[in-house]
Amino acid sequence: MNPEQVAARAELVAPALREHLFVTPFVRYDALSDDVGAEVLVKCEHQQRTGSFKARGALAKVLNLADGQRATGVVTASTGNHGLGVGNALATLGGRGIVYLPENAAPGKVAALQRFGLELRAEGNDTGVLELKARAYAAEHGLTYIPPYNDPEIVAGQGTVGVEIVEQLAGRPLDAVVVAVGGGGLISGVAAVLRKHLPNLAVYGAQPAVDDAMAASVRAGKIVQVDAGETLSDGTAGSVEPGSITFDLCRELVDEWVLVSEDSIRDALRLVIDTEHQLIEGAAALAFAAVRERRTELAGRRVAVVSCGGNMSSSTLVRALA
Amino acid sequence: MNPEQVAARAELVAPALREHLFVTPFVRYDALSDDVGAEVLVKCEHQQRTGSFKARGALAKVLNLADGQRATGVVTASTGNHGLGVGNALATLGGRGIVYLPENAAPGKVAALQRFGLELRAEGNDTGVLELKARAYAAEHGLTYIPPYNDPEIVAGQGTVGVEIVEQLAGRPLDAVVVAVGGGGLISGVAAVLRKHLPNLAVYGAQPAVDDAMAASVRAGKIVQVDAGETLSDGTAGSVEPGSITFDLCRELVDEWVLVSEDSIRDALRLVIDTEHQLIEGAAALAFAAVRERRTELAGRRVAVVSCGGNMSSSTLVRALA
Repeated sequence: MNPEQVAARAELVAPALREHLFVTPFVRYDALSDDVGAEVLVKCEHQQRTGSFKARGALAKVLNLADGQRATGVVTASTGNHGLGVGNALATLGGRGIVYLPENAAPGKVAALQRFGLELRAEGNDTGVLELKARAYAAEHGLTYIPPYNDPEIVAGQGTVGVEIVEQLAGRPLDAVVVAVGGGGLISGVAAVLRKHLPNLAVYGAQPAVDDAMAASVRAGKIVQVDAGETLSDGTAGSVEPGSITFDLCRELVDEWVLVSEDSIRDALRLVIDTEHQLIEGAAALAFAAVRERRTELAGRRVAVVSCGGNMSSSTLVRALA
Repeated sequence: MNPEQVAARAELVAPALREHLFVTPFVRYDALSDDVGAEVLVKCEHQQRTGSFKARGALAKVLNLADGQRATGVVTASTGNHGLGVGNALATLGGRGIVYLPENAAPGKVAALQRFGLELRAEGNDTGVLELKARAYAAEHGLTYIPPYNDPEIVAGQGTVGVEIVEQLAGRPLDAVVVAVGGGGLISGVAAVLRKHLPNLAVYGAQPAVDDAMAASVRAGKIVQVDAGETLSDGTAGSVEPGSITFDLCRELVDEWVLVSEDSIRDALRLVIDTEHQLIEGAAALAFAAVRERRTELAGRRVAVVSCGGNMSSSTLVRALA
């Protein structure tokens, strides 16, 4: 799947997604703009339904299933934003959903998934094993497995963030976009759409310095594992799936990789809370930190930052800010 | 000014305010509804421009001035939401603004006021004295003093929250409304409008147990001072101005006073962050805490809670949640 195909598919699915999800604000953050010395426009996916952009990809994927497939059921493995996205898609369109999750999942996350009417299966605490179990169960019972990012519909769904940015720019130029990268679904979709309309746009991918699997893979020219440390940006954590379609998309679309320290992520989180009073999650703070790190080259430019999610717990917040 | 006059004035000014401010969401908080055992609908003024409902009253007041008065200038004393509301009103409509603020005001709050182009005068640290100085300067130089709540236009402006709730109910019944009370401008405006359309509505006023000047005044039958303690609900802190029009409105409109402990405010803040991932300020948490305290009598009812603001600093947040 090349960027042109991603962009075309994102633009095709955008109207259907709009019926069920929010067109999130795309607004100037004044204090951050002053801080960076650039015009920083923020795409507020932390205000999206379910609290993150993941609602888009999941809905695009479930929309693309036949009625029979939805009724038979879909399976995924996630206690995080992807699980909420799948739950929201099924609550919206109808259908059965099974979510594999670790036995030590936070009670709040479990309750949020239950509220969508999902069937929950808590088995062990290894997320890699849970994903394999979910896939196995789906294959065995003829259900549809919904991956978190390695899927053309998912990537196209995340790309609708870019479709909205183009509309919300309303003809204004844009010099750069900054997106946090985990599996690479969001940046692949967004950058593919934006590049189509803004061929000279600089695309910045942000990763935690301690957990930079995609950046390391692009550097190595192949998907590699990294020895990941704990990061506040838990939404981007994890390795890149072998053979993921997002790897080639990231290679082609991302101009600059910004590896961000945990302290910088924390500082960006604090800045956004103190000046915009918006609750964002670590992965969103990662993108804000990246634009601050590159202030010298971005000075005087108009820069879009995707604030990818807002699903932060009070306990993580206290740990991050204390 | 009686409730009927407040409601009429709020409905009159609502269309003009809508041109410049957000119609904030009025949404069901699912986890909170489960927690209380009621249908809890939240009016999200923490998402209003400037981060609080105070933008409404200030804009209504400034709209009501003649062009000459705006150009000559307005004066107020506030580093908080009222100051931001006045700044936003002047930035929107044009005009000169002078704000008296304490010398120890937080740098972030000062920067936010400066961003609106206000003239700042830092003098001492006694807010009572600052207000008197602001009034004196206005009187001496023919400028207009803008009080935080004791003003018919301000109360009517806050009442537009009620106008929107009536519209957003779209004919659904409502059993109760819960509003945090400081000077009483918000609850006076909101309750006056809602009562007009929903005569049997129960109106709950929430105050911190340690800082309950309005509730104590209503109990005493006259405006009294209380020996106030420190509260997380800093937005409602302070005494009630002698002769305030909000006193009689509160006496007439508020059915139940809920005095909330600091621990309950903190618990409500934590619940909203963990389940809705919304950053709210202490005064908003106060209203959420009040609905939780009255769960027995509110069980099975449809209850509106006004989430009055979201201007919370990271340092206060950490202190509150730690």
